[in-house]
Amino acid sequence: MGELRRDPITGRWVIVDTDSPLSPKDFEKEMHHWRGGECPFCYGSESLTPPEIEAIRIEGTHPNTPGWKVRVVPNKFPALRVEGDLDKRGVGIYDMSCGIGAHEVIIETPYHYKDIPSLLDEEVKDILEMCCRRAIDLKNDRRFKYILIFKNYGPSAGASLEHPHTQLIALPMIPKNVIEELSGAHYYFEYRERCIFCDILRQESQEKERIISENKNFLAFCPFVSRFPFEIWILPKKHNPDFFGMKAEELGDLAKILKEVLRRTGELLFSPAYNYIIHTSPLDGIEYESYHWHIEIMPKLTRVAGFEWGTGFYVVPTPPEIAAKYLKEV
Amino acid sequence: MGELRRDPITGRWVIVDTDSPLSPKDFEKEMHHWRGGECPFCYGSESLTPPEIEAIRIEGTHPNTPGWKVRVVPNKFPALRVEGDLDKRGVGIYDMSCGIGAHEVIIETPYHYKDIPSLLDEEVKDILEMCCRRAIDLKNDRRFKYILIFKNYGPSAGASLEHPHTQLIALPMIPKNVIEELSGAHYYFEYRERCIFCDILRQESQEKERIISENKNFLAFCPFVSRFPFEIWILPKKHNPDFFGMKAEELGDLAKILKEVLRRTGELLFSPAYNYIIHTSPLDGIEYESYHWHIEIMPKLTRVAGFEWGTGFYVVPTPPEIAAKYLKEV
Repeated sequence: MGELRRDPITGRWVIVDTDSPLSPKDFEKEMHHWRGGECPFCYGSESLTPPEIEAIRIEGTHPNTPGWKVRVVPNKFPALRVEGDLDKRGVGIYDMSCGIGAHEVIIETPYHYKDIPSLLDEEVKDILEMCCRRAIDLKNDRRFKYILIFKNYGPSAGASLEHPHTQLIALPMIPKNVIEELSGAHYYFEYRERCIFCDILRQESQEKERIISENKNFLAFCPFVSRFPFEIWILPKKHNPDFFGMKAEELGDLAKILKEVLRRTGELLFSPAYNYIIHTSPLDGIEYESYHWHIEIMPKLTRVAGFEWGTGFYVVPTPPEIAAKYLKEV
Repeated sequence: MGELRRDPITGRWVIVDTDSPLSPKDFEKEMHHWRGGECPFCYGSESLTPPEIEAIRIEGTHPNTPGWKVRVVPNKFPALRVEGDLDKRGVGIYDMSCGIGAHEVIIETPYHYKDIPSLLDEEVKDILEMCCRRAIDLKNDRRFKYILIFKNYGPSAGASLEHPHTQLIALPMIPKNVIEELSGAHYYFEYRERCIFCDILRQESQEKERIISENKNFLAFCPFVSRFPFEIWILPKKHNPDFFGMKAEELGDLAKILKEVLRRTGELLFSPAYNYIIHTSPLDGIEYESYHWHIEIMPKLTRVAGFEWGTGFYVVPTPPEIAAKYLKEV
């Protein structure tokens, strides 16, 4: 893809596509439409993607042919490339390096029109299990310091293909937003000798008004400091810094609660576009004891505008207490 | 409006509308359309806004009647309210306070369809001068620590009214994004004994390839670490932490270069939605010597998706070197 560049003022990283840059005319279609044409993620189109990395398959079926239930392929238009070294260098006061990383697509189901709420619990569990498997495999590449797993659903959440898929990006550095969260949690831990996420769990369970759903291993709620209306967090009840080490029982419970809250969101808000992000600890060999992995789901109902960009403040037109009430009742 | 809530992990602030919360059904129209109906910012509709705070007027015309050239009114749907005290308090592990602040609208011109590129230089200068005047006035209210001036142009940049307007929000705390920039600039200053923005000016002037335009007092260029394709920064050549203290000659030069780069952007990219933000130092009485005020213009051509939300990385499909070339040639 291209170059990694680092802002000398804020330390923010940017991936610049120097290989196949978009021209002014490319943007209009880029923004508002599905990519169109034959869907490369459907049965029978396996040859339209790069060769598969891994799949959960019906016994006896062969790689890159139909018969898979969850299929992982390299992103055809990766943000970062797997081959090569970082080659960090300065350009005057600026810092840059090569765009090294892995960018994989986890095709969640062979069904083009089935999103998570319409899959079986077992099928959702397969997707989550595959996320863990891929992360554990990529962990062996010592160049990678962080693995981000996320989903863009709907064009206004940044999805360019309609067929349900999750993305995985392995990064050669710990991203800024992750560092911020880790340090916040660490600071609280140092001060109180408690995990801040465990304290959030405790307070939410007492106050109850922001809870949407819970089961043995997970709590789903609208966070007190939601950035977006109808934002939802799913927190594991057991303290654990790391998403990738979940047990089978936990995976099953996560599949159930994720499916449930997405169903509620879809019904209440007319299938809104959304992003969800798995927040987990880095792979740099350090133990992040004060961190607590979780999932943040952000429906795209409002626009981020000048005020948010300029301040980092967010304006939330629906309080999480009210959002949770709607979501619980639907 | 409502409450200010602070995220206990990252320190991020959120403004929650507890007064008139939006329900699920409100979001669809909120997002894609102009508010519609009679335009409250046109001549003859002055009574549709709250009474004007200040205006630049044709001599002999009266407040809240036609005859104004630039008109400032309180936002009818303010994100924050001017009356009252902050009343900071804790709710278990969470922090909150009342939503105190000022939210004003600077109506740029009586002409509904004239954006900055189609105004006279003198008219653009009036808008900028009014921004300075309002900020200097609000500075006297000691509750306010920061004044953000920004513009949302087009619905996908968050504008809800079509008539050209700039917004001003005075905040009771220095926002996170501003602190980040201030500390980055300060850290560099401590280390090198130079302003990082002055160094950027120097390097951009030498390398030339990212420059779009310049005049005696300002340089406009696509920053090396653009977050968005066709992002533009306007930097004053003279080191100055504070936007509000500009001289008349500087205001004139800023009006010219702002108008020029917005014209170029509009012609090249088919009048894209955009945000611009005036980055200036806080009002808390401290001298921010290492800071250098500037304007950042961000056309909305791509979507911020899961990867960006999860990491703080940005993916830029058009390198700033190529963007500047297009913008210079149009």
